[in-house]
Amino acid sequence: MADLLVVGSVALDSVQTPFGKVREVLGGAATYFSFAASFFTGVRLVGTVGEDFPPEHLQLLREHRVDLGGLQQRPGRTFRWTGEYGYDLNEAKTLDTQLNVFADFKPALSDTFRSTPFLFLANIDPELQLDVLQQMKSRPVLVALDTMNFWIQGKRSALLQVLGKVDVVTINDAEARQLAGEPNLVKAARAITGMGPTTVVVKRGEYGALMLSEGTFFVVPAYPLETVYDPTGAGDTFAGGFMGYLAAQGRFDRGVLRRALVYGSVMASFTVEDFSLERLKRLTRQEIAERYDAFQDLIRLEG
Amino acid sequence: MADLLVVGSVALDSVQTPFGKVREVLGGAATYFSFAASFFTGVRLVGTVGEDFPPEHLQLLREHRVDLGGLQQRPGRTFRWTGEYGYDLNEAKTLDTQLNVFADFKPALSDTFRSTPFLFLANIDPELQLDVLQQMKSRPVLVALDTMNFWIQGKRSALLQVLGKVDVVTINDAEARQLAGEPNLVKAARAITGMGPTTVVVKRGEYGALMLSEGTFFVVPAYPLETVYDPTGAGDTFAGGFMGYLAAQGRFDRGVLRRALVYGSVMASFTVEDFSLERLKRLTRQEIAERYDAFQDLIRLEG
Repeated sequence: MADLLVVGSVALDSVQTPFGKVREVLGGAATYFSFAASFFTGVRLVGTVGEDFPPEHLQLLREHRVDLGGLQQRPGRTFRWTGEYGYDLNEAKTLDTQLNVFADFKPALSDTFRSTPFLFLANIDPELQLDVLQQMKSRPVLVALDTMNFWIQGKRSALLQVLGKVDVVTINDAEARQLAGEPNLVKAARAITGMGPTTVVVKRGEYGALMLSEGTFFVVPAYPLETVYDPTGAGDTFAGGFMGYLAAQGRFDRGVLRRALVYGSVMASFTVEDFSLERLKRLTRQEIAERYDAFQDLIRLEG
Repeated sequence: MADLLVVGSVALDSVQTPFGKVREVLGGAATYFSFAASFFTGVRLVGTVGEDFPPEHLQLLREHRVDLGGLQQRPGRTFRWTGEYGYDLNEAKTLDTQLNVFADFKPALSDTFRSTPFLFLANIDPELQLDVLQQMKSRPVLVALDTMNFWIQGKRSALLQVLGKVDVVTINDAEARQLAGEPNLVKAARAITGMGPTTVVVKRGEYGALMLSEGTFFVVPAYPLETVYDPTGAGDTFAGGFMGYLAAQGRFDRGVLRRALVYGSVMASFTVEDFSLERLKRLTRQEIAERYDAFQDLIRLEG
């Protein structure tokens, strides 16, 4: 059974970090998200790729319980992103973006897809996010969205409209400040809950994440790692672990939301240990359970 | 009874942040440290001030269980520091430093002071830190030190010598990387334990702190605040809460060390809510207990 639908980018990434360089490897928000979430639940992916998209990538996702029934393969080239990171690995410098077939991506959900109970609107044009939400047969049990500075600046009104209709927003700290127009992160998160979502998840890169839900904060660090090769996809993997766990539980009370945030952090911690989805491809459920335990120990005050 | 001895600076600070400006207010590492620690235990302060040091500051510390028997008042002017912070409040820009009587500070411990069981060597010349340690009658139960980039670069060999003799080091993240010559913070912290201390506490400003002790990491966020006026003294207050709690417990097993880190974070969270020691002056034990409880809730995974 597929409980979780994601709409977003599937891409070929070229990335350089101080620790290495890869060219046209599997990437994209929906890719990282769905692969991470698939460790917890069945996932349906809606996106688009070009004729040049390597079939082995499709195979990889299919083998991992990702339903590609919503992935349109269209004439033209796949979305390509080229970026590099400096030693602090905190912020990507985008060197080149070629939208290609993604430029006129128009999600069309099949009848089956329209009744998926958990929905994640990855970082795409808020007008498309709104359109997807309207295609759903009934209001999903839980809807989350991710966004970025580009839409906050350029499509603010559409973004505010879709924000008013979702339960959870995942957003970077700088973008949370930008969206709220408020330099203090606590006030910014509160302001964002005023825009609609009951839960705001602020991603802080190497410093972890902060969640404001029903007026209460929960803060988790990033898992301390000795080897970080490439942060690309960390935020999307984080969201995939978070939403995948929630969808598997089928509920989202306080305890479940907090554990979901830790599963998100756990999944992100694996992603950054190698380029592209390489670490996730080798990842086992046993390793996830072990790192979750280690994470608990990392933040446990008593005992 | 005074359980905790601190050696360090007492200063008059002039600070500008986006939220206000103060001139020649009470500051200095030993001041912030001792005031914070005095909520938990009796504190002995060793330092120096000039003839111009306002007597009301001495009175304030005395009323707060800080034994000033080791504070030399000498001919000349008190140490003055002038700095400013931008909107991110992360890093102070030093505009002016006048060492004055602090330039030839030579700590001389009285017979009573020499047998204090807990010792904190605040951020001063590592040669002085070593000298203080040698003045102690017997090895204290616990010795911690703080240091900074200036000494890491300029007095590395003396610093390594004193590091080999202490139990705990508190240090900023950038300085931990610099001291270890290692960009990865996990590897850097491990490398520093190899220099002597069994416990390394890395201060990360608005992102909290990380502790490596007996091979195990514990990570706490900073308490999320809606109003941050001035981060000056946050690190020293943090150390004061941490050491004050340890000294009051008289032991430092895993659970006590973790709670101490949270008390350090709690104390730092109050300091930054106002300039100088203003917030600490109004602070009650009840407020500390309440924020500790709130902090527990902030990081608790289960429940």
